[in-house]
Order: sequence, then C-alpha cells, then structure tokens
Amino acid sequence: MEYPTHLETPSSPVHTAKTLAYERSKASFSVKDMAEFIMTKDYLERKDKVMRIFRAEPENFDRSNTYFQSRKEKLDAAFRSEKRLIELMKEGKISHEDTVVTITLLGEIGPLGLHRLMFIPTLEAQASDEQQEVFLKQARNYEIIGCYAQTEIGHGSNLKGLETTATFIEETDEFEINSPTLTSTKWWVGSLGITCTHAMVMVQLYIKGKHYGIRPILVPIRSTETHKPLPGVTVGDVGPKFGANTIDNGFVIFDHVRVPRFNLLQRYINVARDGTVTIPKDADPKIIFGIMVATRVDIVYNMSHDIIKAATIGARYTSVRRQLTDKADKAPVPEGSESPILDYSMVQYRLIPVVAKAYAMLATTHIIFDKYNKYMDQVSKGDFSMMKEIHATSCALKRWTTESCVQGIETCKNICGGHGFSQFSGLNELYVNTYPNVTWEGDNYVLCQQTAQYLIKTIKAIRAGKRVEDNGSTGFLKQYVSGKLVKSQFSRMSVSQLAASPDAQLELLAYRAAAMADDMLVGMEKRGRTWNQSLVKMPRLSDAYCDYIVASYFRQHIESLPKNSPLRPALYQLGSVLFLYTLANTTGDLLRLPGNLFTSEWADDIEPELLKTTEIIREQAVPLVDAFEVPDERLNSALGRSDGQVYENYLKMAMSDPINSGETADKIRQLWWDQYLGPVVKGNGNLASRL
Amino acid sequence: MEYPTHLETPSSPVHTAKTLAYERSKASFSVKDMAEFIMTKDYLERKDKVMRIFRAEPENFDRSNTYFQSRKEKLDAAFRSEKRLIELMKEGKISHEDTVVTITLLGEIGPLGLHRLMFIPTLEAQASDEQQEVFLKQARNYEIIGCYAQTEIGHGSNLKGLETTATFIEETDEFEINSPTLTSTKWWVGSLGITCTHAMVMVQLYIKGKHYGIRPILVPIRSTETHKPLPGVTVGDVGPKFGANTIDNGFVIFDHVRVPRFNLLQRYINVARDGTVTIPKDADPKIIFGIMVATRVDIVYNMSHDIIKAATIGARYTSVRRQLTDKADKAPVPEGSESPILDYSMVQYRLIPVVAKAYAMLATTHIIFDKYNKYMDQVSKGDFSMMKEIHATSCALKRWTTESCVQGIETCKNICGGHGFSQFSGLNELYVNTYPNVTWEGDNYVLCQQTAQYLIKTIKAIRAGKRVEDNGSTGFLKQYVSGKLVKSQFSRMSVSQLAASPDAQLELLAYRAAAMADDMLVGMEKRGRTWNQSLVKMPRLSDAYCDYIVASYFRQHIESLPKNSPLRPALYQLGSVLFLYTLANTTGDLLRLPGNLFTSEWADDIEPELLKTTEIIREQAVPLVDAFEVPDERLNSALGRSDGQVYENYLKMAMSDPINSGETADKIRQLWWDQYLGPVVKGNGNLASRL
Repeated sequence: MEYPTHLETPSSPVHTAKTLAYERSKASFSVKDMAEFIMTKDYLERKDKVMRIFRAEPENFDRSNTYFQSRKEKLDAAFRSEKRLIELMKEGKISHEDTVVTITLLGEIGPLGLHRLMFIPTLEAQASDEQQEVFLKQARNYEIIGCYAQTEIGHGSNLKGLETTATFIEETDEFEINSPTLTSTKWWVGSLGITCTHAMVMVQLYIKGKHYGIRPILVPIRSTETHKPLPGVTVGDVGPKFGANTIDNGFVIFDHVRVPRFNLLQRYINVARDGTVTIPKDADPKIIFGIMVATRVDIVYNMSHDIIKAATIGARYTSVRRQLTDKADKAPVPEGSESPILDYSMVQYRLIPVVAKAYAMLATTHIIFDKYNKYMDQVSKGDFSMMKEIHATSCALKRWTTESCVQGIETCKNICGGHGFSQFSGLNELYVNTYPNVTWEGDNYVLCQQTAQYLIKTIKAIRAGKRVEDNGSTGFLKQYVSGKLVKSQFSRMSVSQLAASPDAQLELLAYRAAAMADDMLVGMEKRGRTWNQSLVKMPRLSDAYCDYIVASYFRQHIESLPKNSPLRPALYQLGSVLFLYTLANTTGDLLRLPGNLFTSEWADDIEPELLKTTEIIREQAVPLVDAFEVPDERLNSALGRSDGQVYENYLKMAMSDPINSGETADKIRQLWWDQYLGPVVKGNGNLASRL
Repeated sequence: MEYPTHLETPSSPVHTAKTLAYERSKASFSVKDMAEFIMTKDYLERKDKVMRIFRAEPENFDRSNTYFQSRKEKLDAAFRSEKRLIELMKEGKISHEDTVVTITLLGEIGPLGLHRLMFIPTLEAQASDEQQEVFLKQARNYEIIGCYAQTEIGHGSNLKGLETTATFIEETDEFEINSPTLTSTKWWVGSLGITCTHAMVMVQLYIKGKHYGIRPILVPIRSTETHKPLPGVTVGDVGPKFGANTIDNGFVIFDHVRVPRFNLLQRYINVARDGTVTIPKDADPKIIFGIMVATRVDIVYNMSHDIIKAATIGARYTSVRRQLTDKADKAPVPEGSESPILDYSMVQYRLIPVVAKAYAMLATTHIIFDKYNKYMDQVSKGDFSMMKEIHATSCALKRWTTESCVQGIETCKNICGGHGFSQFSGLNELYVNTYPNVTWEGDNYVLCQQTAQYLIKTIKAIRAGKRVEDNGSTGFLKQYVSGKLVKSQFSRMSVSQLAASPDAQLELLAYRAAAMADDMLVGMEKRGRTWNQSLVKMPRLSDAYCDYIVASYFRQHIESLPKNSPLRPALYQLGSVLFLYTLANTTGDLLRLPGNLFTSEWADDIEPELLKTTEIIREQAVPLVDAFEVPDERLNSALGRSDGQVYENYLKMAMSDPINSGETADKIRQLWWDQYLGPVVKGNGNLASRL
C-alpha cells in the first residue's frame, strides 16, 4: 500500500503542525522551568536516562506496534523487557529506583513489577532478620520471583473472610497450606499466572487448634529448575481482562501443600518449634496489611502519570482539530478554514479541568510521598501513631485520583471525537490499563467508608472534648467544631472573589468537608440512620475531604516556589479551575449544606466564572501540557504527537496495520474473499425477490 | 490442567445457584408475561427462532471463545456467520427483518451489517426508480456489497465542510471523484476496510462550475471478480479500535476516479446528459441525510438491547456475591455466611436505576419505532412536516440512550467488583462495542445542540404568538408559556407524593425541560450570551427534554396494559426510580430553576425516597432482569449465567484459556522460561549487594 502522492495539500488550509507551533508561541512562562517544578528535576533526569536506553535498544523496549499485538505478543515483549532491565541493573546502568520510571515510560506493569512493588517490600517489612538473610536476598537477586496472594475468588473486601488456611503440623515442623473450597481459590494475583516461583500467601493461621488471624506465609509455587508447578499446586492465569494484559494475574488452589515453619513471616509473630506463639505487644495488628498503604500511594503516583498523558493528547489534538466556525472566535480564523475545537466553550469546559487535575495530582504525589516516607521511618522505630491518618488519607486519595484519572482519560477520548476511539489515539490502551485501579487495592466504594469512618470518629471525639492529635487531616475539623471556619472570609465572598483567593478556596473546601462529616454523624446519632443507609453519602464525603486535601497539597507545592516566580499565575489559575469545577459538579450538595451559607443566586455564578477561567487557561493549554515532558514513545499517539504531524501519521499507522500491508494481509484477504465474500457476491440469484 | 477435586464445597456456605433460585421465588409477577410486554411477542419469537439456528450450527455462530480471539480470528468468525446468514435467507429460513435480531444475539455488527442498515436504505430512499431497478436489486441480492462513506479524516460534524468532490465531465458523461487533500480522506466508513465492493460516497457536487452541495454517488471500490481495489482507489482498514473490531471501518482516497453519470443518486436531483440540473422543489434538502435519522433510531434499539445485558449480569451477580455482613439485613444471613452485596444500599442505589433505565429504554424503542414508521410513510407521500421534530427527538434520544447505556454498563462492571474487569464477566466486550455510539452518527455534544436549537426556536415562536404545530414534543412548551404547567399539581407536592404520582412526575419533568429551554432563550436574547457561551448548558437541556420524553413514552407503553394487569405496580415503581434518580443527579440544576419552585429542604427528601424505592425493587431485581430473556450465549458471562453456577464456570473458563491448557500453553510457557525467566532466576549473583 503506497502513500498517495496526488494530494494537493496535507491539511487544508492551515497545517496542524503550524497551528501547534502557534499555540506554543503564546506561552507565558518557561516550559522548562515549569517541567522542573511540576515533574521534579530528579524525575526528568531519570526519564532522560531511561529514554536514552530505550531508544538505543528498540529490540528490547520499543512498543510502537503494541496496538497490533495479541496478548501473547504483548506478554512476550514484556518478558523481554523485564529480562533486559534486570541485566541493566546488574550492569549498574539503571537502579532499582529507576524501575518506577521504566514502568511509567513503558506504560505497563510488567510480569515482574509486583515482585518489586509488593513481594520485596513485604519481606522487608514483615520478615525477621533471619528470614531476610535468606528470602530477601534471593528475592533481590531474582533467584526467586514472588507475588502477593491475598484476594480470593469469593473474597475481596472482607479480609477476615479469606478461607485459605495454614495449619501448624508439629510432627514435621511444617505448615500445611490448604484451599478448602472453590471460593477460597486465590484469584487476581499479579505475576502468579505465568511468572512467579513463589507466592506470599495471606492465610488464616491455625496453631494447635487456635486461630491467629491472617498472616503472610511464603509458599513455593513453581520449580526454580523447571518452572513446572509443584505437587499439590493448581496454578494458572485468570484469563483475558479489560486491560493490563501484560500482567499475568493468576489463580492458585492448594491441596494440602506443606512448607517449613520458617516460611511464616515472623517479624510480627513468632512460632517456636513446639508451636508456642509470641506476638510483639506494641505492633498495631493492621501493620500486616501495611503493604496496601504503600500500593495506594504508588497508585496516586501512577494516576498522575496516566492523566498527564491523556491531558497532553487532549490539549494538543483539540488545538489542531478544526471543525465549523465560531463567529465570536477571538483569533481570526483564516479564510476557508474552521475554528480549532479548543475554541469552543464546551471543549474548554471539559479539557481544562483535566489539565488542572493533572497538575494538582502531580503536586499531591510529591507531598504524599514525603508524608509516607516519614510514616515508614516512624514505623521502623516502632511508632505507629501516623497509621490511622495515612490509612484514611491514602484510601481517599486512591479513590479520588483513580476516579479523576479514569474520567480524565475518558473526557480526553471524547473530546477527540471519533478519532479518540482509534487505538492510534493512544487513549484507549491507557484507559483500559488505568481502569483496574478503581477496584484493585480496595474497591473505591469500600475505601471511602474507611475515610468516612475516620472523619466521623474524629469529629465525634472533638465534639466530645477528647484530645485529638493535630495532624494535617484533623485541624480543619477542629476549626469547624469551634465555629471558626464558618466565620472565615469565604462565607462573605462572591464566586468571583473566591476564584481570586486561594486562601478562601481552602476555607470553603474545608468547611464543606467538615459540614458533610458532621451531617453524617448527626444523621447516624440523632436521626437513627444506619451505616448501610449512610453508605450513599460516603463517596461524596470522601471526595469532599479529598477536594480539600488535594487543594491544600497543591497549594503547599506552589508555595515552595519563590514569591516572584513567573510560574505562579498559571498555577494558581489551575487551582481556581479545579476549585470552580468542584463547585460546579457538586452544587446540589453545596446548596443543601446545613446553615444555608450558599444561595442559588450565588451558585448561578459558578459556571460563568469557571467558563471565564477555562477560557484564560485555554491560551496556555499546549505549553502547560508540554511541561509534562511525556515522550512521544510513551504517548504512542497520532493525535498527540509533539510535532503536530497528525493526519499524516494517523494514515501511516493505519497503512502499516498487518491487515492492510504485507504478505499476511494479502493472504488473509484472499482467504476471506475465496471462502466467504466471493461466494456471496457471485452466488446471487433469488434473494432480491424474497425481500 | 485438571479441575481440582479435593475442594470440600464449591461455595461456602450458600451456593450461588441456590441463592439465585431464592431470588426468583420472590417474583410478584409472571416473568413470562413481563417478557412479552417489555420485549414484545414478535421479538421473542424471532429470538427463539434465531437461537434454535445458532445452537444447531455452532460452527457458524458460536461465540463462546471470543475472549481468546485476536482481531483476525474475530473477523473470520464474523465473515463466516455473515455468509451463512445470507444462505439462510436464500433458503428462506430467516428473513431480512430477522437480521436485526441476529446482530443483537451475536453481539456484533458484522462486516455486512451496514450494507443492510445504511447502504440499502439509502438506495431505497434516494435512488430513482430506474436506479433502484439496477443498484437496489444488485444490493439486495448481495451481487454488490456497499458501505456509506460520509465522514472524512478531517471532517465529521461539519457536513458542509466535506472536501471530496464529484465533478461532471460532459465529454464522457461521467463524474470524476477526487480526494484533493489528506484531510479529505474518507475515514471510519464501516465495511470499507475489507469487505465492500461499492461505496455510497457523500461528495461536493460540481456541474459546469456550479456547486450543488453534498450528494450521494455510488462508486465502485473493489472488483467484484477479484476483490482487488480498482485503479485510482487507495483503500484499507483504519486499524484497531477500542471496540467494534468485527467491523472493518475503512478509509479511501480517490485519485480522479471516473464513474458514469447514472451513479449519482437521482431521486432528489436530476442531471441530464447535457448537464442540466433539475431539483424537485417540495423536498426538504435535509432529506439527503435522512439515513442518519434512521440510524439514530436503530441506535436507540441497540442501546436498549445492550443495557439489558448489563443489567442482567449486574442483578444476578450482585444477588449471589456475598461480602461482609450487614447487621440490619432483612433476610437473615446463614451462619458463617455473608450478605449478598445487593443488600447494601450503595449497590441498590447504583444497580436499580440501571434496571429502570433498561425498561424505560425498551419502552421508548417501541414508541419511537412507531413514530419513525409514520414519518417515513409521510415522507414517501412527499410530506416532510414531521422531519424537524423527529430529527430533534432522535438526536436527543441518541444522546440520552447512548450515555445511559455506557454509564449503565460501567456501573454494572463496577458493582461486580474486580471480577467485572475480567473478560469472563461479559461486560467488557459489551462496553467497548457500545462505546462508539456516543460519537458515531453524530457526536453527543454536537447532537444536543440540534435539540436545543429546536426547543429554543419553538419556545421563541410560541412566545411570539406564532402558530406552532401541536406535536408530542411541543405541547409541553405551550403549556409552560401559558403558565398552565407551573400551576399543576406537582408544584404543591412533597417528594414522596411525587414518587407515587406518575402524572405529577411527568408534569415536573415537562416543567423542568421547558424552564431550562426558556432560561437559555432569555440568556441569549436578554443577557447577550452567545451560542458558544451557552454550549455548556445544552447537554443538560437536551437530557432534561429526554428525561421527559422517555418518561412519557414509558408511561404510554405501560398504559397499553389492561388496567388490572399485575405487571403495572413493578413498572410504575421502575418509573419512579428513574424519576427520583433523575432528580438526585440534577439537584443543582433543579434548585437553580427560575421561579424558586423547589427548596433545599424539599430536595433533601429526594435521596432517602430514592433509596426507599430502590430497596423495594431490589426484591424483584432478578425476576425483572429474567424478563429480558437474554440467552446465556449472548451473556457469555460466568457472573451472569442463568443457572447461577458462577465460580465453577469462572474457573473453568480461565482454565480453558490457551495460555493455560493444551500444546500452545506448554510451548509458550517453556519458551518464556527458557528465553527470559530461567536466565533471570539462574543467572543470579551480584544484584542484591547493589540494592
């Protein structure tokens, strides 16, 4: 198939690349400075290093043909990359820390991703020193490859309901692992389907007839010599999924499988040779599931790196796509041309909040990582005081960022019109790979209950006059109960005044979240509403809390800039967009808050103010997404290319489909003609008369 | 891989199948009667006939292994089915009308679907009698296979902006078809990528230097002998998409291709040998795009058949999935068991509105089909008076039903938790295949402008005292302007009174839609808001209009039942759910309607009332979805199976994945071990010390 040569002009009358260059010329700030601020210098350096390697070794890391690949081909590419990454680590060319960036840039958690993200950290946190000497060393050396087997086919959210058992067999000094029922089948376990040699299995522990709750135990799954499943182990892949098909989520059923006593992770429980159990008193029992806090924080990071890809494609393509003419257009449209669709208010209204969220999520990632590291530092010293707050906040952020990211990608898909539906948009693989985040590591509708519970308990304690620690997540609740918040400046401001005051925005968001928490408490305590009846309001409470947290983290990150930084205006405008967008989407809740602080006349101004602000940011949309520095390889998008050569490459990508070009295409097309279509077309005769 | 035999019980302690049987025992109506009412007897008979054929010929129609198939394999199966369907038509075993049902039951528009849905109807509507004698006969006989080529890579919504030209060449009595630019490449055309021999191409028509707008012309694409592309035609498949990969959407570029003058469809334009053009005066020029109204009505049908699949899987699986225990549960949970997740208010709140929408959409389909047939009947008699209304209503319904369906499937996917992410849930292929409907045949954000324009123009005309025809879509606007609506009973009712009064519900919905249309008109006329600035409110206006239309169509269909029908109570409850759900999701708009008819205290009752109603319907959820009679083959879902054998089949489906079982699995696993994983595990040594 030849690229047609008779075409007069590639894109009439203004070429997409020229339009993109024009958008860039409007930048009110240095894109490089913005990149260093929002992505961090550390990330940019790692990214550049990794991209140099990827570009030098396309045979190992090229993903440009991923849209044509079957699941097996995708897995093959993923395995190949994983092997090479480990070699590169051994050669000292990349570090263990760099693998976070490699995952982002390849756009996939490979089959060894969870070995690094869940298996090794669990050994680090919960194995005794003696066990670390053996297992952790092997794991870090990839002599064993591990997974984390918690969820069962019949049990997800209810961890206490897990059915897999480990029973101490004193005679042989072993534990016997067993799956008693079909519903106890371990399911969804990443890296279990094909890859792993060992599993960290969460089991109901029984010793001498006594139950010791859920504990992690290391169980060999496949031979490290032949890789064949070990006796008593029925193991396989859970099959094709909506996305994330480069990970081999697996299932396993144990038929009375024995492992040495030594394999039970013993930092938080000790089992002696005679079955005597010792449990350290100072440890919070929830530390067993500590790895889930870590993975939620990782998810916040991943979501911010996924939404920037969508925002980049969305902003670039809607800048160059022209459709119809808006007569009120500010930039005069050249004769015979049409308006860029980003000039339409409806497109700005949908896209710009995604850009704002992307910035806010990146800032949030930086702050929550710092917080998490501080927490882990404290835990290693036996101090668990931050656990409740970081648990509640990570649950809320996991929900907020995953929902925002999925909606953001979908929005960008939609504003690209029909072309968003093509794999060559780059948005669909992103969408399906991002999607499972709404469920894994805690279903978003379950997680919001954890946050709601924390907020309600805290406000209840404050109301009861109990001492409540003054951490970042409870201060606003105290201010609410004391009546200080309601008297703040925000309550006397018009919407447009609010839009210009980051302080007042934070106050309003804090007030709203606290009032919603208080309202739920009152509903339960005074109006007899049950937990089940209150469930419907919990996602909104959790999200309202997060709207406040994200806004304050974003603010905190902006304030790290020098006072006179030229980056500040755009960043604060993005903050205002996010604020107004939040109000616009929750007006119903806002108007029904107790106290009648807000009127419907006041609320009438939200949407026009939001439109005004998105129209301003629209002018900076392309520079703002350029600052994310998402490499073209990672975009893998005809629509979002940095050079703006959109339709040329879109057509070329289609032409290169093995169903269009080459031997395979000729063969399969001939076959379909000979077998199916030809006989239909040639076997005519008596059908028309019947119709 | 052997199914494990040591498992004590399949599902502990209450088997999923037993739970489903219990749900069915609660039915308050005859499922068979309900099926005949909501699906129609005619559909059920066709469905049973087609399913008998499908089951008798698995080699032609079985789709059970679709989740393991590559695009090529899916296309192969689709071609095979298409060929057999045509044979069955020739054998007189199924009719042309039955093919609508075959598409639904196979769950895919095959490569010949658009030949029937767009190509033939365009010939029927726009070809002259003489042309029909040739082309229509050939098309009905499948001697030619056609597609409908309108959209271009650079032009979708702006039909006037299409760039492909057809120029009359008097010397040879031909038209020359040309693609002047890259952006004029015809793109997305279904059946063009691989299948078709001919294309109905929408072109800018030029005759003797004069422009005659957009017209359809029949252009041969591939040889009917060899199926090779004809000279000057560059044609191929647009490549992989998010879904709908059993259709070969294609592209085509014409390099000065000649066709006989006869190929220009001549019912609404006549070109004589000398280039003299005659255009009938009475025809509305928009009739050229008449096929798009038809396809929008088809979409309403398809959406109702897609959402019932999702609702069926969602209701059945959430009934049998157990997770944690709700202490306030009504049905006592057996010892050691957990509550069905459908007992949680948050799941009811999400699922039951989907069931309600499914019922409302099916009812809407029945009414809009009647309306459309009446319209086509009038058009054939030269009466175009219904065109504007049916255009506006079909645009609004297309938007409303596609958004509802996509959201409904997503909701059902989410309430199934992690398992919703598995292809074996049956919800993901459904989702991706349904998704393009939000864009094709008119992007939903563009279509809502058509509806908004119609409503605004009408209300403006009414206010100006002009005569406005009293059709189903304008009566409520007149009542609004006259002030009659605002004085209706609804305005004096509490939320719970409204929930019990279908009449008042319709009044409120009519009032709301009319007030929003009026508000937009006022904004434009008195407050100087431009069209662009008003865009953001148009989706909401269009949807508010549709909320009213769908409720009134649903009502109309229910009222066709005898007064004492035992089906009525459940149906009216579903109507109330939909009504309350609509209010709950648009409270912000409702509270800001001019006139201050609604207060925030009043609105506080919406959610509790909705929860109360969904809790009642929850008891009938399984019988209600059973009445859709979606065959298990169409569900192709481990979670939604009619026999409730959920986890057994889920595990068996996974085990049958070619990556788990059989020669292929052994080979590929060995290869991955030998090439990638083995060297990693065995090539240990110096990595741990570096970390």
